[in-house]
Amino acid sequence: MTRLQTLLGIDLPILQAPMAGVQGSALAIAVSNAGGLGALPCAMSTPEMIRTELEKIRAATSRPVNVNFFCHAPPVVDAAREAAWRRTLGSYYDEFGIDPATIPAGPGRAPFSSEAADVLEVFKPPVVSFHFGLPAPDLLARVRAWGAKVLSSATTVEEARWLEAHGVDAVIAQGVEAGGHRGMFLSDDLTTQIGTFALLPQIVKAVKVPVIAAGGIADAEGVAAALALGAGAAQLGTAFLLCPEATTSAVHRAALKSEAVRHTALTNLFTGRPARGIVNRLIREVGPMNPAAPAFPLATAAITPIRAKAEAIGSGDFSPLWSGQNATGCREMPAAELVWRLAER
Amino acid sequence: MTRLQTLLGIDLPILQAPMAGVQGSALAIAVSNAGGLGALPCAMSTPEMIRTELEKIRAATSRPVNVNFFCHAPPVVDAAREAAWRRTLGSYYDEFGIDPATIPAGPGRAPFSSEAADVLEVFKPPVVSFHFGLPAPDLLARVRAWGAKVLSSATTVEEARWLEAHGVDAVIAQGVEAGGHRGMFLSDDLTTQIGTFALLPQIVKAVKVPVIAAGGIADAEGVAAALALGAGAAQLGTAFLLCPEATTSAVHRAALKSEAVRHTALTNLFTGRPARGIVNRLIREVGPMNPAAPAFPLATAAITPIRAKAEAIGSGDFSPLWSGQNATGCREMPAAELVWRLAER
Repeated sequence: MTRLQTLLGIDLPILQAPMAGVQGSALAIAVSNAGGLGALPCAMSTPEMIRTELEKIRAATSRPVNVNFFCHAPPVVDAAREAAWRRTLGSYYDEFGIDPATIPAGPGRAPFSSEAADVLEVFKPPVVSFHFGLPAPDLLARVRAWGAKVLSSATTVEEARWLEAHGVDAVIAQGVEAGGHRGMFLSDDLTTQIGTFALLPQIVKAVKVPVIAAGGIADAEGVAAALALGAGAAQLGTAFLLCPEATTSAVHRAALKSEAVRHTALTNLFTGRPARGIVNRLIREVGPMNPAAPAFPLATAAITPIRAKAEAIGSGDFSPLWSGQNATGCREMPAAELVWRLAER
Repeated sequence: MTRLQTLLGIDLPILQAPMAGVQGSALAIAVSNAGGLGALPCAMSTPEMIRTELEKIRAATSRPVNVNFFCHAPPVVDAAREAAWRRTLGSYYDEFGIDPATIPAGPGRAPFSSEAADVLEVFKPPVVSFHFGLPAPDLLARVRAWGAKVLSSATTVEEARWLEAHGVDAVIAQGVEAGGHRGMFLSDDLTTQIGTFALLPQIVKAVKVPVIAAGGIADAEGVAAALALGAGAAQLGTAFLLCPEATTSAVHRAALKSEAVRHTALTNLFTGRPARGIVNRLIREVGPMNPAAPAFPLATAAITPIRAKAEAIGSGDFSPLWSGQNATGCREMPAAELVWRLAER
């Protein structure tokens, strides 16, 4: 048992990465009941949805589950930028017969809030994690009040030191290989984002709290390598995307099983922040990092109807096909079995 | 002993990465005599220089040494592009009082040639490695004729398969963390360049020949992690840059020992091809990847006099400060001792 396993109360050094949009309580429950740490992503959920999911979790497991939130500053809406962005996407609106004037604006993702804290206080989850830093001190204090262990992601040594100084119980070292949103919060310079092999040992040396390795880990050998580099546990997301308990869409599952999965990129097209997904038509044609995309998470709105029309005809050309750089661990098997395999060595 | 150690005839699973411009035979001899595989970089050497270095190696060790060459296609000189690039650098020429009309053109780096093969045939080095793919079949056949084992770098699964199909004896999986030139040769799209944690196990699964891990490895724990991921050995470059046997410049050594080393970027400013170095003033001001830079290796010429003037006043602002993303393994100790420490676990 590593120090981290004791801290989190888990039998196996395996964390399932929270993945908003492709999983809910079912995956979290399966992973936690198998001895790992399941996660419930709440970035795209209303307080009522969070309550419903936490009720399901309470009914199905007595093991710890990690409840995860984004904690970005709410964006400033910029009508001119939004209009320019919709013009950039104009040929796609034409192609799918969409009137861009009818697209509702809206952020799509919400940061941790006092309303969310109200819900959490009822359930008192033992582990709460954040992405993009930490929430305001008063909100964080509410989470700490029931004894929750607090985790957050660091993509640089500087971020790891910042998180430790602000009181996290463990740091997730998120290497550049990882799928989904980069947790970066002290810089928006992508050249600061480094590989797990380089990031993990530097963070292990830089902080005293336990470190969780994320990014590029796909199997038991990967978990063993992460532990050899000083991690107390490994966090995997991509590997769970084909599990029956995940709600991964059909086009996303098809892409993960295709040769296309070998080529991912960090892209801001889907939300406004860099996140790693499989390179598809939109990314190829607009470029993965387009400076015209609206600020996070406002970019979500403009793509949503194009994505819906494309998915309706079985195409993932306009979908955020989140994936890490190593999808070889994806298995169409129950999450519990996957957890056990990952911990085999 | 791994299969790779037997193939290369080395006691320890440690390869020293060839690093043109910062080392010669002295480092190669020290590493090979310690039981690892030292390397002699020849990309910036004339045939006569190569002969002199190989004579030194023959006199100092009976162990195998890896003789390394670039094998890029010679560039097409584009006078308009060169002129535009010198205009981009105009303020620096002014700052240092340099007349750009006096700067000699020239490639700076040469690919493997029949003249180089003539020299090698005299010495018959047991290991020859290439960067940027492989040389033309007739040149490669000459190397094979004396029984040399041939290595080359792959930065993608596709490149690894290509190298195996073209007859290499082992593949170096070069993760994006690695310092110096990316070995990429089937694509120039940087989003194809992935972290060691993701690349290494995918290449291990994709090819039958042994695989050497490179990128982000800094210490014995890193070597152990690479072996856990299926590598037969680890190749390290950055870790050797502070060894007394390296010819690393004073400004380069100072940068490696400073906080600046935490921030590297892939940049084409110094040669025309993406290579990883510490972010300095030139990279910050011109951008790490500038589309105006001349084709590899022609970009070298325009920077050379600015670099020389800056280094003369102790500044690395315009120098290629090659480094990987994990410089924590740099030690000011004899290379032999470093090799033994790396192999300690």
